[in-house]
Amino acid sequence: MKSPRPILIDTDPGLDDAIALLLTFASPELDLRGILTVAGNVPVNLTTRNALQICELAGKTEIPVYAGCPRPLLRHLETAESVHGDNGLADVPLPAPTIQAQKQHAVDFLIDTVMATPGITLCLLGPMTNLAVALIKEPRIAANIGSVVAMAGSFFAGGNSAPALEFNMQVDPHAAHVVMTAGLDVTLAPLDLTHSVLTTDEQLARVAKLPGRIGKAATAWLSFYGAHDRKKYGTPGGPLHDPCVIAYVLWPELFTGKRVAVDIDLKSDLVPGMTVMDWWGTTGKAPNALVLHQADVRGFYDRLFERIGALAAAVQ
Amino acid sequence: MKSPRPILIDTDPGLDDAIALLLTFASPELDLRGILTVAGNVPVNLTTRNALQICELAGKTEIPVYAGCPRPLLRHLETAESVHGDNGLADVPLPAPTIQAQKQHAVDFLIDTVMATPGITLCLLGPMTNLAVALIKEPRIAANIGSVVAMAGSFFAGGNSAPALEFNMQVDPHAAHVVMTAGLDVTLAPLDLTHSVLTTDEQLARVAKLPGRIGKAATAWLSFYGAHDRKKYGTPGGPLHDPCVIAYVLWPELFTGKRVAVDIDLKSDLVPGMTVMDWWGTTGKAPNALVLHQADVRGFYDRLFERIGALAAAVQ
Amino acid sequence: MKSPRPILIDTDPGLDDAIALLLTFASPELDLRGILTVAGNVPVNLTTRNALQICELAGKTEIPVYAGCPRPLLRHLETAESVHGDNGLADVPLPAPTIQAQKQHAVDFLIDTVMATPGITLCLLGPMTNLAVALIKEPRIAANIGSVVAMAGSFFAGGNSAPALEFNMQVDPHAAHVVMTAGLDVTLAPLDLTHSVLTTDEQLARVAKLPGRIGKAATAWLSFYGAHDRKKYGTPGGPLHDPCVIAYVLWPELFTGKRVAVDIDLKSDLVPGMTVMDWWGTTGKAPNALVLHQADVRGFYDRLFERIGALAAAVQ
Amino acid sequence: MKSPRPILIDTDPGLDDAIALLLTFASPELDLRGILTVAGNVPVNLTTRNALQICELAGKTEIPVYAGCPRPLLRHLETAESVHGDNGLADVPLPAPTIQAQKQHAVDFLIDTVMATPGITLCLLGPMTNLAVALIKEPRIAANIGSVVAMAGSFFAGGNSAPALEFNMQVDPHAAHVVMTAGLDVTLAPLDLTHSVLTTDEQLARVAKLPGRIGKAATAWLSFYGAHDRKKYGTPGGPLHDPCVIAYVLWPELFTGKRVAVDIDLKSDLVPGMTVMDWWGTTGKAPNALVLHQADVRGFYDRLFERIGALAAAVQ
Repeated sequence: MKSPRPILIDTDPGLDDAIALLLTFASPELDLRGILTVAGNVPVNLTTRNALQICELAGKTEIPVYAGCPRPLLRHLETAESVHGDNGLADVPLPAPTIQAQKQHAVDFLIDTVMATPGITLCLLGPMTNLAVALIKEPRIAANIGSVVAMAGSFFAGGNSAPALEFNMQVDPHAAHVVMTAGLDVTLAPLDLTHSVLTTDEQLARVAKLPGRIGKAATAWLSFYGAHDRKKYGTPGGPLHDPCVIAYVLWPELFTGKRVAVDIDLKSDLVPGMTVMDWWGTTGKAPNALVLHQADVRGFYDRLFERIGALAAAVQ
Repeated sequence: MKSPRPILIDTDPGLDDAIALLLTFASPELDLRGILTVAGNVPVNLTTRNALQICELAGKTEIPVYAGCPRPLLRHLETAESVHGDNGLADVPLPAPTIQAQKQHAVDFLIDTVMATPGITLCLLGPMTNLAVALIKEPRIAANIGSVVAMAGSFFAGGNSAPALEFNMQVDPHAAHVVMTAGLDVTLAPLDLTHSVLTTDEQLARVAKLPGRIGKAATAWLSFYGAHDRKKYGTPGGPLHDPCVIAYVLWPELFTGKRVAVDIDLKSDLVPGMTVMDWWGTTGKAPNALVLHQADVRGFYDRLFERIGALAAAVQ
Repeated sequence: MKSPRPILIDTDPGLDDAIALLLTFASPELDLRGILTVAGNVPVNLTTRNALQICELAGKTEIPVYAGCPRPLLRHLETAESVHGDNGLADVPLPAPTIQAQKQHAVDFLIDTVMATPGITLCLLGPMTNLAVALIKEPRIAANIGSVVAMAGSFFAGGNSAPALEFNMQVDPHAAHVVMTAGLDVTLAPLDLTHSVLTTDEQLARVAKLPGRIGKAATAWLSFYGAHDRKKYGTPGGPLHDPCVIAYVLWPELFTGKRVAVDIDLKSDLVPGMTVMDWWGTTGKAPNALVLHQADVRGFYDRLFERIGALAAAVQ
Repeated sequence: MKSPRPILIDTDPGLDDAIALLLTFASPELDLRGILTVAGNVPVNLTTRNALQICELAGKTEIPVYAGCPRPLLRHLETAESVHGDNGLADVPLPAPTIQAQKQHAVDFLIDTVMATPGITLCLLGPMTNLAVALIKEPRIAANIGSVVAMAGSFFAGGNSAPALEFNMQVDPHAAHVVMTAGLDVTLAPLDLTHSVLTTDEQLARVAKLPGRIGKAATAWLSFYGAHDRKKYGTPGGPLHDPCVIAYVLWPELFTGKRVAVDIDLKSDLVPGMTVMDWWGTTGKAPNALVLHQADVRGFYDRLFERIGALAAAVQ
């Protein structure tokens, strides 16, 4: 049997982050070395607490959680309570965590882990601040990073938090620029992909049947999450962003993508942080990312709920 | 019977411009007061000659043609010979025109005509340079312009000449900004619309049956035009952009659209001239344009070829 | 005797513009073919009326005045009533003009005159809108323009209307870009020069002795003008900007300058319209302007008041 | 007696940095808690080695040196070997250092020291990368920083490494933005000040008389440094930038300044990193820095050479 793939998850839970973490916990193919938190959907003190609570909910108290940067590189922090709830987790109360975040800063844990684990995979579910700061502080990590898979960006999808802007990019476009220009092996799961991965009523009905405390939490989270986006986009379900990153690491065969040149706009007043993709190769720039744009949506949800269902059954 | 609607066409023929002119000539509902030319697909001396030749081809030598601005407001002129041929008309030789362009500059003819014709409709098929210069020179025309219908922009379609950029916007983004901020009644036919209006083999077969010299020219033009775009986009036909503007003026019932706020990016180094559309109303800005995004494509081609066919039959 | 040098003056009177016009009227070396007005210090209806009144004050009713663009290329018009008075002329009432502006637009008079007068000198005292629109409408004028001398810009002087921005540049930076990139022979009189050309108490005392209605008006104008700037800069007099342009055309020996590369910033949110000068040649760009930076200030005022004094004596 | 003032120096030696360090070593009023290095005049491996060698030259081997960020936040590193020599120290060979840099990263030492030393003074002699990264990683340090005194920026002086750009700002404008928007007590010593602090032949003659190895090194450094700038600016000596920071901390009475609003331009293509100063209060922005602009130059050099002379005498 293949040994589990070492990964780090950098995240700002956040409802879809929470589902992504459950999927990771439920997947023996992945060796999760730590969870890094960052400011994004809600401030970093809440994303850190949420990460701890999600670990505890899933009985994964052995996974170390490291609090990261409380602010983007340059911009003032924008958060998304209207999408994720005031606490970042659909305003569903979870028990106060009994475990605590580690003392080390997420940036330094990232640097140390990457230097000690050549080839490691970094899964970025929130703004890219921590990885950017790590690259500025210690550029030598770039050579050791195996791959970066990030929920980030929008090109054909038109944006979510602002025109042409995906939220993670809008929060810290400068960090994304640092990451995208570091010569890394990057795969992006942009809105172009995730806006077709909809949690429809059919999927919600499946979640509602998952057992125990995990089933209950996941149902609350996905119901809250979808309600906002269904209303906004007029779609039969809300997109499920972050789990696509973990699903791609587990099952790349479920996704199609294209290698293209992606640049982050840092000058525009209108689309600051847009992921400009040279989709038809008109610029002559060399590709710097694999951009996922289609998924086997049914396959994705089948495997997602199978995994989370097994986890839910085990911990109830 | 309703009296014909007075219009001006500002154009840079250009293959799809040529089809749009034929459709106009063939439509008694429209009272074409003049053709204004501008630098765009090819330099203005060629777009002017082409306009004259197209008038002559269609036996419409009474329509006055006015040469306009030979350069964009600020940018260096970029042209598109690879898409339209070196002469702008698929490198198909047409007889030298016997008619000549008027002596008056297109900008001044535009100002005079608008001041004399309150409520007139302006159909913009190329870069918006002429209207922008007219608005700068004589802002009072704004109150007299009934409506502007323009082939312009891209949001969900991803651009054609560059990432996120539609060619007319890329050529003169500053002119577009002047037009879009002048308080006019603007309707846009962006790539989001026109990239679904494909001249497939089925449509090409219908063109090939049109009679006479117009049928022959239209066939040559559409064959040349489609070949480039089919290869680029991998679609079963090339988009037919500019005729959508005239078709919308004639038959608005063929199109669906949405009123949104549209801004032109003038700061970005990556997407200079992008039409940023607040499609989901996240900015709070008031709508300033009706953006067409869907068409009854079959209905469009049926009516287009019916009209051009009648014209072709009349002049052979 | 050398025949008088043909010039056009493009101006937004404005107090220093008014003095510059008087100096021109008083100088037989100059053949003033017309005055073009533009929006700047005050709106164009006022700058036009002021130009007519100044002509009438000086008995120069034969000089044709052409009203130009009422707005900048892209920006909203900003005016400077606090510096020039609500009427643009220190709120000093002058008799209503008996002469009228010409019917032709200043832009078209500029094009026609330049095409008919190869080698003509253009003196720009306000925002460069008219010349920019002329260059866009008819780029062939560039080859016929002998030289452009403009009151424009700031580099070492730190700006007047905003940090690093001279007012004429701030009002229409895009027009300045068009002019500066047109391959013309350009001489700039920036704040770096004019902030040393101070109308001190000694100079004000000389003005106060000038006879007749011109002496009276000039005294009122310069007193009003200096008061604002003395307070702002803490200097013993206010700078006298626009007359430096005419003085340079008449007496270049009074000025020292340096040929440098000058670019207009169009991207900055902080210094939009800054004239960035490569003073020490660090960029490798070829010079595109002669930038005046020092004047024989005493010689300037001596000659200025000698000329205006003679005119004042002649018309009283 | 007042207890010595705790300071950190963040530096990229660099010739003027070297003189600034000697002045610090020679000043009992200052309690230098550590030297942080950064990439700037030369890469960080060289600035670190140079810092160690300068400590060793001065017999100050007890001062800990911490290597910092090897790259700016976003931009590619630009260095200045033409000004400082290939090794950053005038290509004068110094003995290999016997001491070593500390293991801790400069950013973390900065955070730890500031958290442990409320009110500490930070002297920034190079690009502001380390402090910016520290503020991003741990924003709470802002409340503990007593004051920041930085050699940075240019407004009236016109720039050194590029038009309107001072080198430290050009290297890392984004870091400067982070620092300037953190609500800190900031004093800037820009080129507006330092371009009047010239090391003339008279001053060079005084340096040449300083004894021992320090005298020899300082003479070599200042001779090399001035040669470049004398030629560039045509002045009777080269400016001496970084020692002004230490001199201001020691003897504020030698300097005059003005509290103004300073913004860092991050959008311009022409002046990216310009310190835009609202010198005449035209913007309505609240001041965020004390900008030094005049010095008692003679007093400065007298005290500088007195101090360095004493140090030189002590270690020979």
